[in-house]
Amino acid sequence: MSLLCVGSIGIDTVETPAARRESILGGSAVYFSYAASYFTNVQLVGVVGKDFPPEYRALLASREIDLSGLEVADGKTFRWTGKYHENMNDRDTLEVHLNVFGHFNPKVPPAFQNTDFLFLANTVPAQQLQVLTQMKKRPKFVAADTMNLWIETAREDLDTLLGKIDALVINDSEARLYTDQRELLPAGKALQKKGPKTVIIKKGEHGALVVSNEGNFSIPAHPLEQVVDPTGAGDTFAGGIMGYLASTGTVNRDTLRRAVAYGSVVASYTCQDFSLDCLQRTSRQQIDQRFRELLEMVHIPA
Amino acid sequence: MSLLCVGSIGIDTVETPAARRESILGGSAVYFSYAASYFTNVQLVGVVGKDFPPEYRALLASREIDLSGLEVADGKTFRWTGKYHENMNDRDTLEVHLNVFGHFNPKVPPAFQNTDFLFLANTVPAQQLQVLTQMKKRPKFVAADTMNLWIETAREDLDTLLGKIDALVINDSEARLYTDQRELLPAGKALQKKGPKTVIIKKGEHGALVVSNEGNFSIPAHPLEQVVDPTGAGDTFAGGIMGYLASTGTVNRDTLRRAVAYGSVVASYTCQDFSLDCLQRTSRQQIDQRFRELLEMVHIPA
Repeated sequence: MSLLCVGSIGIDTVETPAARRESILGGSAVYFSYAASYFTNVQLVGVVGKDFPPEYRALLASREIDLSGLEVADGKTFRWTGKYHENMNDRDTLEVHLNVFGHFNPKVPPAFQNTDFLFLANTVPAQQLQVLTQMKKRPKFVAADTMNLWIETAREDLDTLLGKIDALVINDSEARLYTDQRELLPAGKALQKKGPKTVIIKKGEHGALVVSNEGNFSIPAHPLEQVVDPTGAGDTFAGGIMGYLASTGTVNRDTLRRAVAYGSVVASYTCQDFSLDCLQRTSRQQIDQRFRELLEMVHIPA
Repeated sequence: MSLLCVGSIGIDTVETPAARRESILGGSAVYFSYAASYFTNVQLVGVVGKDFPPEYRALLASREIDLSGLEVADGKTFRWTGKYHENMNDRDTLEVHLNVFGHFNPKVPPAFQNTDFLFLANTVPAQQLQVLTQMKKRPKFVAADTMNLWIETAREDLDTLLGKIDALVINDSEARLYTDQRELLPAGKALQKKGPKTVIIKKGEHGALVVSNEGNFSIPAHPLEQVVDPTGAGDTFAGGIMGYLASTGTVNRDTLRRAVAYGSVVASYTCQDFSLDCLQRTSRQQIDQRFRELLEMVHIPA
């Protein structure tokens, strides 16, 4: 089944302890869509400015991502500059220029309004809600991401959103902030009570804990020899999950577990280079191979 | 098969964000032995002072831990006072009084010198080495723990020790410090090169990564509703691992994975209360039940 993603498209400048890269392709919807495109047909709704480089557009098109919902607005593309700490987990945002993303009003094209799988990437909860109202029928499965800013400044809208989605993807510190629970299991359960049957708590290099009516489970990150740039890891994680689920068309205990494992795998490739550089060199066969390695790595014989 | 443990026996005062407990039973060898006693016969070599409460001795004896190697020296028992930060991961040591442990010269009784499984709990590496020389024959399987202090001040002895053991149990920050590697996979491989075929890297609430000739694997911590006191979690983790391995008498891919899962389970019980309070209320049946839950929680269908 097809998968629709609404979110940001950006041009990033990223500094890590090892290197610095300027004006590279980024944004939650970009990372998400690219990762998901290994598994299913992806439709992208987002906005860029007139300065958006044609080669970046071509890169997305090369994965057969449907760009008919990609708006080109007068002005400049969203820009973000960030710097990672020595530990590669924490980062500081040095600059944000929302540019055309600041007054983005997502419009879901009619051809996308019946799509069965929908991902609302991190943005103002009111905007995520507004996308939902544009769907002709309630999609089969809706997931959303959010961030600390909205937990702190738009909690009411976020609570409303949670009442309307099937799965929430959230990182560990945000889950703690939202629920005031230190432990992730009760945090996940508290978030479930707000609506989503499945809460996927991202723990960065430590993997993820999934609290779900389909059974709770835990998955590690695929261990890497070197992390070059973790930017986009969380978005590609979500892209792998939703892409795989959409490809099967079914969400149950088994597909959800496999989906999260695929998410973990594509996220690991993302960390191995800047932007989409490593994923661009990665085939579906390689992803499947690492998926099998991950399964072997977590298997405990009874 | 039997399992011998040499290490510290202490009386702790622990403060967490929620509560404070004074003069409770602690020490690496105590936590280790208690956890291991669910799986096999445990022999303990350690030292206490004349002030060691008889009820603490009785508690260890109640698990049929062989205390014939427990020396009672003139003076006071080792005492430690620590305070956990709000995040329950970091802690400050407020007071340490080595007391009789400061001039402890471990003597392995003749009856223990042929034991097949040996655990050298964290202490000066020279002392760990000295225990090894007391064994009549090289045990079938030797594991050791260590800490940042010895990595920084006794690296040469520690390197020698690593050349003589089968498994190293070490936490993530110590593995990074020892090897100067940020990522745990290359850190584990670098430690393997120093000798041990298996390196078990503890990640606290995130579980463990095992780098081993028997195949690398990853295991999460059993998620808890509430962590009351993590003191001793790492030692009981090691106790569960070594206890299970000794009970099977065999170290291979399958037993090692099950052992680490059992370690994760007993460590989770340790965190649910102060000292050994939760484990004291826990039966082997309950441990087996949580072991099955952990297996279910990590299982990804192919």
